[in-house]
Amino acid sequence: MATSTERDAMEHALLLARMHGVAGPNPRVGCVLLTPDGTRLAEGYHRGAGTPHAEAHALARAADAGVDVTGATAVVTLEPCNHTGRTGPCAEALRDAGVARVVVAQRDPNPVAAGGAATLEAAGIEVEVGVLADDAAALNRAWTFAVTRGRPFVTWKFAATLDGRSAAADGTSRWISSAAARRDTHALRGECDVMLVGTGTVLVDDPRLTVRDADDEPLAAQPLRAVMGLRDLPEGARVLDDEAPSLHLRTRDPHEALATLAAREARHVFLEGGPTLAAAFLGAGLVDEVVVYVAPMLLGAGRAAVADLGITTIAGALHLDVVDASTVGDGPEANVRLVLRPRTTPTTPTSDTDGGDA
Amino acid sequence: MATSTERDAMEHALLLARMHGVAGPNPRVGCVLLTPDGTRLAEGYHRGAGTPHAEAHALARAADAGVDVTGATAVVTLEPCNHTGRTGPCAEALRDAGVARVVVAQRDPNPVAAGGAATLEAAGIEVEVGVLADDAAALNRAWTFAVTRGRPFVTWKFAATLDGRSAAADGTSRWISSAAARRDTHALRGECDVMLVGTGTVLVDDPRLTVRDADDEPLAAQPLRAVMGLRDLPEGARVLDDEAPSLHLRTRDPHEALATLAAREARHVFLEGGPTLAAAFLGAGLVDEVVVYVAPMLLGAGRAAVADLGITTIAGALHLDVVDASTVGDGPEANVRLVLRPRTTPTTPTSDTDGGDA
Repeated sequence: MATSTERDAMEHALLLARMHGVAGPNPRVGCVLLTPDGTRLAEGYHRGAGTPHAEAHALARAADAGVDVTGATAVVTLEPCNHTGRTGPCAEALRDAGVARVVVAQRDPNPVAAGGAATLEAAGIEVEVGVLADDAAALNRAWTFAVTRGRPFVTWKFAATLDGRSAAADGTSRWISSAAARRDTHALRGECDVMLVGTGTVLVDDPRLTVRDADDEPLAAQPLRAVMGLRDLPEGARVLDDEAPSLHLRTRDPHEALATLAAREARHVFLEGGPTLAAAFLGAGLVDEVVVYVAPMLLGAGRAAVADLGITTIAGALHLDVVDASTVGDGPEANVRLVLRPRTTPTTPTSDTDGGDA
Repeated sequence: MATSTERDAMEHALLLARMHGVAGPNPRVGCVLLTPDGTRLAEGYHRGAGTPHAEAHALARAADAGVDVTGATAVVTLEPCNHTGRTGPCAEALRDAGVARVVVAQRDPNPVAAGGAATLEAAGIEVEVGVLADDAAALNRAWTFAVTRGRPFVTWKFAATLDGRSAAADGTSRWISSAAARRDTHALRGECDVMLVGTGTVLVDDPRLTVRDADDEPLAAQPLRAVMGLRDLPEGARVLDDEAPSLHLRTRDPHEALATLAAREARHVFLEGGPTLAAAFLGAGLVDEVVVYVAPMLLGAGRAAVADLGITTIAGALHLDVVDASTVGDGPEANVRLVLRPRTTPTTPTSDTDGGDA
C-alpha cells in the first residue's frame, strides 16, 4: 500500500507532468524522490522527445544538489521505461542509483517500452503500480490511445451557428466563432502534435494552422501541419511557411494518412477543415472525439457546417455521447463548446407514444 | 431596513410562491405574517386567477386558526394590489386586519394593480419595498415582462442535431431529441400559459401540444393551445381534442397574434413548430428567449431546423447571448440544452488578423 505521503507525492508528480509536459511522441511524466520517511529529495519531469525522462531528470537534479538517493522511494506517474530509445532505460538508472522502492501510477501501455517494473523487481526493488492510475491515464489519454491502438487519437473540431451553418448564403463567414472561442481553439491545438486539414481548405481559406497566443503570436512549440489530399498545394500557401513544420499527405484514405502519421510517432491529430475530410474520417470510424464551437447566432441559410455523410434516414444517424457542454468567453464573446465521443455500440431509440417531437 | 428575520421570511414567501404558483394571468406570490418580534403567525400563497391572493390567503388562514394579526408584519413577495379584480384589493385587506408593517420584494409593475404601497402608507402603515426584489422579479419574469410591455413573453424552442438538422434526408425524424429532452420540454411547457404552433405543424405532425408527465399522462392544468395561420384545421386534429383548450388565430402576423393573446391575459407563449412561424416571430423582433435542444447526432443532410430568415450575409446574422448551456439526461439520453436571448443592441464583431476561422 502506498502511504498518504506517497499519494501526495504522486499528486505533485502529476502536476509537474502537466505543467512541464509537451505534446509529442512521448508521454507527460513527473517524478518525485522521497526518503523512506517521506521527505522530498528531488523532483523531475519530462519535457518532450530528446530531453531526459522524468526519473533521469530527478536523479540528475539530486546528484547536482549532492543528495544521496540510496534507499530512496521514486514516485513516478508512468512505469519506468525498460528500453533504450533516445535516452537509456530508466528502470536501470533507478536501480543503479540505489533506489529501494518505486511507486507508479500508470503501467506503461507502450509494448516497446514496457517491462520496467519487472526489471526493478528482479533487482530486488519493491514496486507498487496503480496509485492515481486513472489521473495519470487521463493526463496522457491521447498518447495512451496511440501507443495501444497503433494510430493517433483524432479530435475533430468544427464551428457552427446555432442552426448548423458555417457560412452565410453569400459565402461570408467572418466571424462565426467569437475571439474567445478562437483562443480556446488555439489552446486545444496546443495539446495536439498534428493539425490536419484537406487540400480544399488550404486552397480556399489559406490558413496558417499555427498555435498562437492571445496576442496572435505563434508559440515556440508548433504541431506538425498536415494537409491531406491529392491536389498540389499552391506555392506561397501559408501552411508551407517557416512558422511550423508541414507535411503533404498525398492520399484520400484516412487510414493511410493516419498510418503515415503513426509512423512519425504522431499521437494526437487535431482535425480541422472542411466537411469532406471530416466525412471521410467519420465514415472510416476514425474520429475519437468531437469538439463543436456553437456560435450563438442564426443564419437560416448558407453553407452547412457538416455535409454529406451518406446518411439518408434517421435510423442511420451517427450518434455521439455528450462529454461536456460549457460556455467559453463572457458576454457577447460567449460561445458554447460541446465535447462529444462517437458512440461505438449502437443503441436502440427509446419508444414513446406521441407524434414527432411534440 | 428589513431585519434578518424578515429576509428569512421573504425567502420562505418566495418558496411558497414558487411551489404553489401556476402559470397564468396572475403572478406567483407568497406571503408570511410575523409578530413584531419575528414569530411566524401564518402564511399564504396564490394559486392562480380566481383563487385568493397570497395576502388574503394568509389572513384567512390566520383567522381560521384564531390568530390575532393586529400589529403584525406582512412579508409579501409582490406589492399588495390596490384594485378590485377577481378579488378585492389586498392593501385594504391588510389595513383592515390591523397589520402594522408590510415588507415587499417586488413593486407591482402592473399599472392596473399598482399603488398598494401608497394606500398602505396613507393608512399609517410602515412599508418597505425591495427586499430580495431581484429574486421576486426572476420568479415572475414572464409575467413582469407581459404586464409592463403589454404583450406575452415569447420563448421559442427548437430541437436540432449537432449539425442543425430536424429530420433526415428522407424526412424521418423520430427521434431527434432524447426522452430526457422531451420530458424537459414538457416541464418548460408547464411554465407557460400558451403553446403556439403554425397550421403547418398541425397539418403535418398532428401534435397533441399538451403538457404531460413522465408517464405521458396529461397534467391537470394545461396551457392554451394556439394555432396560428390562415388555413383551416382538419377536423379530428389532436390539438382540438378535449385534453386542453384550443384557439385558432387566423392571422399570419405575429403582432396580431400576440395582441389577441395579450387581450386574453396571456403572459408566456411557448413557441414550437416549424421554421416559418419562428422566422416570422424572429423577423418581427418578437422572440424574447430561445431554447435549443441539441441532440448529439450527425445527419449530414436533411431538413434544416431553422430556415429562411431572410439573411444572406454574415453581417446580417441574428445574434443571441448565451444564458445557459447544460446537459439534460444521462448517458445515451444526454442532450444539450442551450438557453439564449436575442441581442437587442447590435455589436461590432471583434477584429483579428487571421483568415477564416483558422
